[in-house]
Amino acid sequence: MPRFDDADFAVEPAPQDPRASDAQPARSHDHPAAQAIPSEHGNTVEIPATRSSISGTSALMHHLSMSPSMKDRRGSRNSFGTSLPIPRSPRVSRLSSAGKPRLGARDVLASQVQDMSKEKVAAVKNMAFAFDIDGVLAHGNEPIEEAKTALTILNGDNELGIKFPYILLTNGGGKTEEARCAQLTEVLEHPISTDQFIQSHTPMQALAEYYDTVLVCGGEGFKVREVAEAYGFKNVVHPKDILAWDPTISPCRHFTEEERAEAKPRDFSKVNFDAILVFAESRDASTDFQIIIDLLLAKNGQLLTRDDDPAANHIPIYFSQGDLLCPTEHKGPPRLNLGAFRISIEAQYKALTGADLERVVYGKPERATYVCADEVIRSWMEEIHNERSLPEHIYMVGDNPQSDIIGGNLYGWNTCLVRTGVFQGKEGTNDRDNPANFGVFDNVLGAVKAAIRKELGEDFKLKWNPKINPVTHGESSSAIE
Amino acid sequence: MPRFDDADFAVEPAPQDPRASDAQPARSHDHPAAQAIPSEHGNTVEIPATRSSISGTSALMHHLSMSPSMKDRRGSRNSFGTSLPIPRSPRVSRLSSAGKPRLGARDVLASQVQDMSKEKVAAVKNMAFAFDIDGVLAHGNEPIEEAKTALTILNGDNELGIKFPYILLTNGGGKTEEARCAQLTEVLEHPISTDQFIQSHTPMQALAEYYDTVLVCGGEGFKVREVAEAYGFKNVVHPKDILAWDPTISPCRHFTEEERAEAKPRDFSKVNFDAILVFAESRDASTDFQIIIDLLLAKNGQLLTRDDDPAANHIPIYFSQGDLLCPTEHKGPPRLNLGAFRISIEAQYKALTGADLERVVYGKPERATYVCADEVIRSWMEEIHNERSLPEHIYMVGDNPQSDIIGGNLYGWNTCLVRTGVFQGKEGTNDRDNPANFGVFDNVLGAVKAAIRKELGEDFKLKWNPKINPVTHGESSSAIE
Repeated sequence: MPRFDDADFAVEPAPQDPRASDAQPARSHDHPAAQAIPSEHGNTVEIPATRSSISGTSALMHHLSMSPSMKDRRGSRNSFGTSLPIPRSPRVSRLSSAGKPRLGARDVLASQVQDMSKEKVAAVKNMAFAFDIDGVLAHGNEPIEEAKTALTILNGDNELGIKFPYILLTNGGGKTEEARCAQLTEVLEHPISTDQFIQSHTPMQALAEYYDTVLVCGGEGFKVREVAEAYGFKNVVHPKDILAWDPTISPCRHFTEEERAEAKPRDFSKVNFDAILVFAESRDASTDFQIIIDLLLAKNGQLLTRDDDPAANHIPIYFSQGDLLCPTEHKGPPRLNLGAFRISIEAQYKALTGADLERVVYGKPERATYVCADEVIRSWMEEIHNERSLPEHIYMVGDNPQSDIIGGNLYGWNTCLVRTGVFQGKEGTNDRDNPANFGVFDNVLGAVKAAIRKELGEDFKLKWNPKINPVTHGESSSAIE
Repeated sequence: MPRFDDADFAVEPAPQDPRASDAQPARSHDHPAAQAIPSEHGNTVEIPATRSSISGTSALMHHLSMSPSMKDRRGSRNSFGTSLPIPRSPRVSRLSSAGKPRLGARDVLASQVQDMSKEKVAAVKNMAFAFDIDGVLAHGNEPIEEAKTALTILNGDNELGIKFPYILLTNGGGKTEEARCAQLTEVLEHPISTDQFIQSHTPMQALAEYYDTVLVCGGEGFKVREVAEAYGFKNVVHPKDILAWDPTISPCRHFTEEERAEAKPRDFSKVNFDAILVFAESRDASTDFQIIIDLLLAKNGQLLTRDDDPAANHIPIYFSQGDLLCPTEHKGPPRLNLGAFRISIEAQYKALTGADLERVVYGKPERATYVCADEVIRSWMEEIHNERSLPEHIYMVGDNPQSDIIGGNLYGWNTCLVRTGVFQGKEGTNDRDNPANFGVFDNVLGAVKAAIRKELGEDFKLKWNPKINPVTHGESSSAIE
């Protein structure tokens, strides 16, 4: 699926420009070659270049990836990662900020109302929402007002007083699910449970039963260590633990005294690493590059060693997501993201070994993340409706055609594109390359209303009426008075 | 010259292993796929991967580099960099720690002796040495004892009391030539002049007449700013100047208060950059990647903008050297060097634009550096012998077959490989891939003695005799007594 691969790079190839062959006229005036001075005059002498001024990377890659035995290798390596372990619900959950609903008068009344309209209730339980966070529910720590209203409806402010199942699905990461959900609960003013939340590295907790000693990279300070330990990895090593053991391992290191204090050095020359887990963007790319490459070339994942055939024997490496670019608070174009870091490792590895790096990528739009989402939706259904089932109609609401929409489309979800984030198309337009199949909306509230009308009819009321009479649905006194 | 390209990557491709097709038996026991559990059992569910687990990089590169218009582009872009400006001597020199020899009694006597043996003197002036530094003359700040002896001979402790021309040629960089030569003078206990010294970015000073506003990257703190300003660049911008203007430009930045104090922020949205100069390894790769990519994709080198066809219009980018790996004090394998940084930029650029990055690389073994060396040797000859000429027989003494030796061989120099650094071959062996054409020596002294014997005969004395009689060359009283 070439489109699927392209999507990983977040941008289309530059348009093929026929004018390109008359090279960069705009800059030729200050172009060294253009000002070439006979060597007898001036202050410089011009010399012919002995090699192309064009990146040798692609030539190298092409050359090697075409050699037969490399094809064999790639053939064999494709078997790696053809299946991925995904955590089965019930998921390891340390905190459920939502918890079971407490049965109050309102809930009793609501359940009576629900008893009277089994069809609508069935419809509610047969649909679910998956929300991206940044650009859909909030911008950083600023909530999007319509999002709060939408969550109010989904949490019971509707004619059935019923909870619609929804989960949060983000490519963000770098801190624990607990920490992130506590933060979101505050920002959105609605309880967000870790049991309805998936961030980029959430599916990676399933790897804990396969690997004991893991290098975990990315994120601020040592936060990813907490994450990996919460996932159940027994022996979690952070690059700065290794720096504290031997600072010379990374000549261009970035290492503060505070970090040294938090680091857990030991004799890593005696440690065999089982896998490399890149959880989030690197804060010290030089060091992370160096230690990751060291481990990928090492014998049995042991630092200071080199394997005779690293391409065939290297330890597995996992990346929590593949976004090349990501919108941030920066007012300019989107910033480089974890995908750029991964591509760099791949290119360095190829230059050093001649082989393609075998790796696994999680996160939207990778399939693993959607399979994980199904598991989470099932368990969330059980938590809020006591029915362990996967709704048929799932609505993905996202702002990024390159991850949210393409991933949802490929997985058979209904996709809704909103204008509050990355996508900035005009009124009435959809994304050209990855159109949302359910439509484009000004914001998440519009998408939620449209989805509910589609599944429950135009007349479904998006307001709970505390004075409702379950029998007549009229305004008379309630049945429990 | 494929070999030449390979050399840039500092390692041979991994051996093609026929066994590779039965993938990594060693690790299969803790391999997720290998332990695949039917989804009905256990705590995980296995899912089929929707895409190859192999780096998409090479496929992408292959695909795009093969499209016809891309070929056109590459054809056109090859014209860029087919000639490079090289500083013509007299080079901009702020300090000559050697200076002109002061004429003392010894010098008068020596010149008389030299008058009597014109042939030998001519031979001396028709040879020159180019020394690599690390692993040849010193290890970091530790001098190699034989090197000090060799320099004593070359500086006049020989039967003619004559100075042999020699220069220092290193891929190191990151501080000014003045600072580095002052340091070397102390370490080697011999005066090293900036006029006999070339580090990786020395040839880049010739670019100062083509570019006014340049981004300079790499090295510690702001040292490369000094370097670029010493080279005559009018408007030198350091990535941290840009960070100080807008910290959001690099989400994963590394930025201390000290650095902020030294930074020179201004409104960079109004600045047009003319070129990007990467002088040394990055200390904040994430930020340097981001700002370099921003400028390569920008319209007219202006931050916060994007060009419609960046591949055709981007500003030039120069790298001071191309070593993928470099030996350091680290006791493990050599560390990633500037070449790895460059390869990462190339791969990111290709992923974003679909085009190969057009760039220029200096340093050994690139031709530009050797042409620059010729200029430096000429001017150094003028300084020590008042004859502006280029000796015919130049001896490169280096420890790294991948840069010192291959570069010298390709440029027609006599190459001497020493065992005091990277090369660790056994007694009597030469490097398999890049053999030194003049031979392998235990240390630099052995190489210097062999070269002098070759050019001046076996009987040439490597000791100055202060009691010598210029006429008889006997031990009688000197002619000037």
